[in-house]
Amino acid sequence: MSEKIAFLGLGNLGTPIAESLINAGYELTVWNRTASKAEPLTKLGAKVVENAIDAIETGGIVISVLADDAVVEEIFSMELVEKLGKGGIHISMSTISPETSRQLSQIHDWYGATYIAAPIFARPEAVVAGVGNIAISGKAAAKEIVKPILQGFVKGIYDFGEDPGAANVVKLAGNFMIAASLEMMGEAFTMAEKNGISRQSIYEMLTQTLFAAPIFQNYGKLVANNVYEPVAFKLALGLKDINLTLQTASDANVPMPMADLIRNRFISALAKKRDNLDWSALAQGASDDAGA
Amino acid sequence: MSEKIAFLGLGNLGTPIAESLINAGYELTVWNRTASKAEPLTKLGAKVVENAIDAIETGGIVISVLADDAVVEEIFSMELVEKLGKGGIHISMSTISPETSRQLSQIHDWYGATYIAAPIFARPEAVVAGVGNIAISGKAAAKEIVKPILQGFVKGIYDFGEDPGAANVVKLAGNFMIAASLEMMGEAFTMAEKNGISRQSIYEMLTQTLFAAPIFQNYGKLVANNVYEPVAFKLALGLKDINLTLQTASDANVPMPMADLIRNRFISALAKKRDNLDWSALAQGASDDAGA
Repeated sequence: MSEKIAFLGLGNLGTPIAESLINAGYELTVWNRTASKAEPLTKLGAKVVENAIDAIETGGIVISVLADDAVVEEIFSMELVEKLGKGGIHISMSTISPETSRQLSQIHDWYGATYIAAPIFARPEAVVAGVGNIAISGKAAAKEIVKPILQGFVKGIYDFGEDPGAANVVKLAGNFMIAASLEMMGEAFTMAEKNGISRQSIYEMLTQTLFAAPIFQNYGKLVANNVYEPVAFKLALGLKDINLTLQTASDANVPMPMADLIRNRFISALAKKRDNLDWSALAQGASDDAGA
Repeated sequence: MSEKIAFLGLGNLGTPIAESLINAGYELTVWNRTASKAEPLTKLGAKVVENAIDAIETGGIVISVLADDAVVEEIFSMELVEKLGKGGIHISMSTISPETSRQLSQIHDWYGATYIAAPIFARPEAVVAGVGNIAISGKAAAKEIVKPILQGFVKGIYDFGEDPGAANVVKLAGNFMIAASLEMMGEAFTMAEKNGISRQSIYEMLTQTLFAAPIFQNYGKLVANNVYEPVAFKLALGLKDINLTLQTASDANVPMPMADLIRNRFISALAKKRDNLDWSALAQGASDDAGA
């Protein structure tokens, strides 16, 4: 295999994804705003470019893993999408709003390219272990082309149809559920702790039984210890995601009181200068409130 | 094996537990307020008594699976506990407040009996399948006697020390987390649905991946379909549990905003006359709010 892929965005998630693709035999041309982050990939054989548009080949494939809606819209300028052009496919893995995906999809259509939303559920170590999962949506023909590329580094790909925004909706719903699980454990473990039960012992019972799922087992360890380092996903990005969730819900007339609560926890965590901690530090709010 | 056990309370959970004990070879004397519910057990060889106290043998073992604090306090009168007397052990499996457990424990101590809190996490079908889990707390010596009895019909027994209220705290925390999971799915699935994604498809992805735990897989099916029948656990009992959770939390100065939200969902579900549905019907609140 020697297919070429343009790869934009080498953050906490982008880097291990790019590495996996190189290991799988793809020829990568990478771009990142902070160019120094590309160095480890250069050693693996990736070509580095100074401007995102220089990575693009007309009719080729580009994967983007960028921070938020604004960055995706900035990088995927008319000029860049025009260069991607006829037959080109953009695999957009960033967690952005479904509305942005739908707008970008129209712009891609205009230039004969195809936009596929493919956000990934995975922390960096899950990408390395190949156990992440992707929600995908967009035009059927392009999805069939990109699925084999994605299959190399995830466990499952779940198809949500042709609406390019659909996969983003699923990703936002899932991130909301993860954040809600953190708050839930924060409240439950703190109630137990203040009743003389160790956070560790209730964590162990519940995550070995009713809540024996990765989210509770892995994040629960952090909540049990109230230790939220190292940072795998920034608090500010957690707030961004829950804001997108609430906006998407509001656009469809769906009140989400639990998501409102989570949003306030993120805001409070940032107010307490916890932006140097992992997003799961939102669970510390319950301890703070209880004077624990 | 032909040990005798007094068994009080043949509700949705009590009945399959009693059946499991009979099948395991125990000689059961059963009592239930509505005597007709004991009939199926009579056929299996259980002896039925008209008054709870008549089931008690001095120095013996009694298991109770009753509806709430008030019923447990009513049935476990001074007179009954006195009859249980020296060497007697009460395995209290009801979901009641830790405070009630602590008070009852003192009364048992007074008469030389021992109170063990052993609430079970299981829906009726889980008892039949032997996959429930028990949180246990109370005096060590009595726990060693009762564990072999309980092991016959559950998967795991988790020991939370000598405080007779501890196991109840864990049970309340766990029930809160289940209820919060229901609300979480209600909000997430409704947001997806109103964005053109089927509730079934998002349910499938999330419960096969990040949330691959029994709570999400089993209850998620009900939430995906917005169908909350048959009743395995009554809505009114769900409200009772969350009220106990909030009281226990408040007694220990622990604010639980997510539990507050759940409480209001239960109240609203009862206001909407859903008391003929399973407690998981609380998840329908998100759909109602969205006019779905």
